[in-house]
Amino acid sequence: MYDVLEIRRDFPILSREVNGKPLVYLDNGASAQKPQVVIDAVTRGYAEEYANVHRGLHFLSNLATEKYEGTRGIIARFLGARDEDEIVFTSGTTEAINLVAYSWAMPRLQAGDEIVLSVMEHHANIVPWHFLRERLGVVLKWVDVDATGALDPQAVIDAIGPRTRLVAITHLSNVLGTVVDVKAISHAARAQGVAVLVDGSQGAVHMPVDVDDIGCDFYAVTGHKLYGPSGSGAVHIRRERMAEMRPFMGGGDMIREVHKDAITYADPPMKFEAGTPGIVQQIGLGVALDYLMDLGMDNVAAHEHRIASYARSRLDGLNWLRVQGSAPGRAAIFSFTLDGAAHAHDISTILDKKGVAVRAGHHCAGPLMDHLGLSATCRASFGLYNTEAEVDTLVDALELAHELFA
Amino acid sequence: MYDVLEIRRDFPILSREVNGKPLVYLDNGASAQKPQVVIDAVTRGYAEEYANVHRGLHFLSNLATEKYEGTRGIIARFLGARDEDEIVFTSGTTEAINLVAYSWAMPRLQAGDEIVLSVMEHHANIVPWHFLRERLGVVLKWVDVDATGALDPQAVIDAIGPRTRLVAITHLSNVLGTVVDVKAISHAARAQGVAVLVDGSQGAVHMPVDVDDIGCDFYAVTGHKLYGPSGSGAVHIRRERMAEMRPFMGGGDMIREVHKDAITYADPPMKFEAGTPGIVQQIGLGVALDYLMDLGMDNVAAHEHRIASYARSRLDGLNWLRVQGSAPGRAAIFSFTLDGAAHAHDISTILDKKGVAVRAGHHCAGPLMDHLGLSATCRASFGLYNTEAEVDTLVDALELAHELFA
Repeated sequence: MYDVLEIRRDFPILSREVNGKPLVYLDNGASAQKPQVVIDAVTRGYAEEYANVHRGLHFLSNLATEKYEGTRGIIARFLGARDEDEIVFTSGTTEAINLVAYSWAMPRLQAGDEIVLSVMEHHANIVPWHFLRERLGVVLKWVDVDATGALDPQAVIDAIGPRTRLVAITHLSNVLGTVVDVKAISHAARAQGVAVLVDGSQGAVHMPVDVDDIGCDFYAVTGHKLYGPSGSGAVHIRRERMAEMRPFMGGGDMIREVHKDAITYADPPMKFEAGTPGIVQQIGLGVALDYLMDLGMDNVAAHEHRIASYARSRLDGLNWLRVQGSAPGRAAIFSFTLDGAAHAHDISTILDKKGVAVRAGHHCAGPLMDHLGLSATCRASFGLYNTEAEVDTLVDALELAHELFA
Repeated sequence: MYDVLEIRRDFPILSREVNGKPLVYLDNGASAQKPQVVIDAVTRGYAEEYANVHRGLHFLSNLATEKYEGTRGIIARFLGARDEDEIVFTSGTTEAINLVAYSWAMPRLQAGDEIVLSVMEHHANIVPWHFLRERLGVVLKWVDVDATGALDPQAVIDAIGPRTRLVAITHLSNVLGTVVDVKAISHAARAQGVAVLVDGSQGAVHMPVDVDDIGCDFYAVTGHKLYGPSGSGAVHIRRERMAEMRPFMGGGDMIREVHKDAITYADPPMKFEAGTPGIVQQIGLGVALDYLMDLGMDNVAAHEHRIASYARSRLDGLNWLRVQGSAPGRAAIFSFTLDGAAHAHDISTILDKKGVAVRAGHHCAGPLMDHLGLSATCRASFGLYNTEAEVDTLVDALELAHELFA
């Protein structure tokens, strides 16, 4: 039984007020709040169990190493990876995708080679490929969404040509909530020898993920959206791709031997993890993922779908409000504009006065905004702790904004 | 008045025991412990004040942004930078030096160009340059230390030739404790148009730093050694060098506009900060640096020099123990071996039984180990909270180890 009111008590920030009103936190797409068990793990990590990891040989270093490396196995379990050595720690999805761009793609792709992207990618899954366009002459091939915001997997598969080397695609749009059939895309691409990177920044937050079933080569997640600490994250990399990658960042821990004029590197995954890592935040991420697995990602997804249905029905009742996207099975992420002159920023400011936190802007999705013909939207993005009552508060606040700007 | 016993009470972990003995934490060179104010800032950051930063427009996002961006000014003040826009946030020194390697050096250096390094660099300040050697044919020119472990600045300056493009040098050796005259080196190098990167991982921890006075182009620091959270850090970059740099990682926040086939980048420092940053850990770093500035880095340095003198006198009394390096003005970092067959790892294990945490190994300094003809040492590295009594405990434990292995 998923008791959302009980679950809310796990998140201390949810009981605070902002601007004299109870916080209604609907900015989960940007970052999620943290349960007390995560905060406690971070506090304990610094106050009682802290030291640098690896090569320590003293009590605290061994303890920190054990907990830090334990997270690798937790991430593997959370993502359905067969082998924890296919998990590389990163500071989040951005570093994860840049790792793939610098370590796998840059040494392999040449002028005229193609990368297939959907038009609804986040900048984290666009800018690293623009670097390859600017620096190497790689061609970006864009696949549009349909009028509902759905992405036909066959359109992505059809975009794959003889020069295509990579498909880089989101699992779940941070603007439209569209879920992408990354399994169909991965299987078709891999059958043609084309690598697939899935941006799981949103996908892994809202539904169960099984990278083995999806069949992609790279699956990137970011801890701060997964109810974990800022600066945590990881990427699952299929072993055969790991073998194709050169190191990304250089420094301690990722080497075997360093001499004046010769160097050898550690085996993966250490080869891709340079320097002192985000020790305590990765320990906290492990606790966050255990928390999610205890709740059950199926249960989280079911709860969020109930909230999404309710929110959809309430927002559909506002005939002066335009929600972007209506693809079937979409997640509880609603980007909208109000008819008339009101700017998204002004609307979000009104909502904030009522305690409702939403985001306004381009949501790091420039090409999608171009596609939609918009410069900005408001976005209400729900998480595992949101309630139908909070949907009502959002709607009340929107009605106030509508009155003020009508 | 620097009251070390009072200061120790600020660090909760220092009152714990390990292996039934009071913790004597002498592994500060690897990572430092955190004062309660830093732990509290992290806890509060998650429990009361958390949201993603920038572009938020709601209360919590504005609050988090204000605190996060406030750290930039604190770092600038701590490092003596004239302008906080010359501070780029990174996850630590390793990312900082890789940023310089990828963004500044890679597009500019060609086969045959030279980078001058000292033999006592940490791998974080070696491996990124090995990448340039492997990938571009850049030549690494190494400058040795003398028999005392001192580095003659003139030897570094003399190594600069017509093909030298960069001097990459530590401010303070993490193995020998040697302090390098980076000011003399920077002024001479810059007079010849050669850029200078200073690895301040240890330097900024043990003495006041003024990058304006030093005159270097890049000065990198890591938060976890500065009594701040793991995964925090920054690099000071002289404005004219920033203008020469292309972006490193791509993603949100570092762009101005992203379209399907065109992209423009944000101005520095944002241009070099991609994606959701390490929000809470950078806020914690700001608190740590304020804590250090409240103590006064001159006072910290004076305390550590007292400890260093005492430790040196005690260790000199052990005629079966060899301390590496005796350069004048060195910091409280002692790398040593014991005569006879005892391996550094075995010694550290004995010390650990007595509650004394030291590190054993190559200390991420392969070329220096080659130079010293050693494969490993034990290292006792002191911090602002260590005491003369802890030196005595170290010596007692070493005597026990000596007896066991003699």
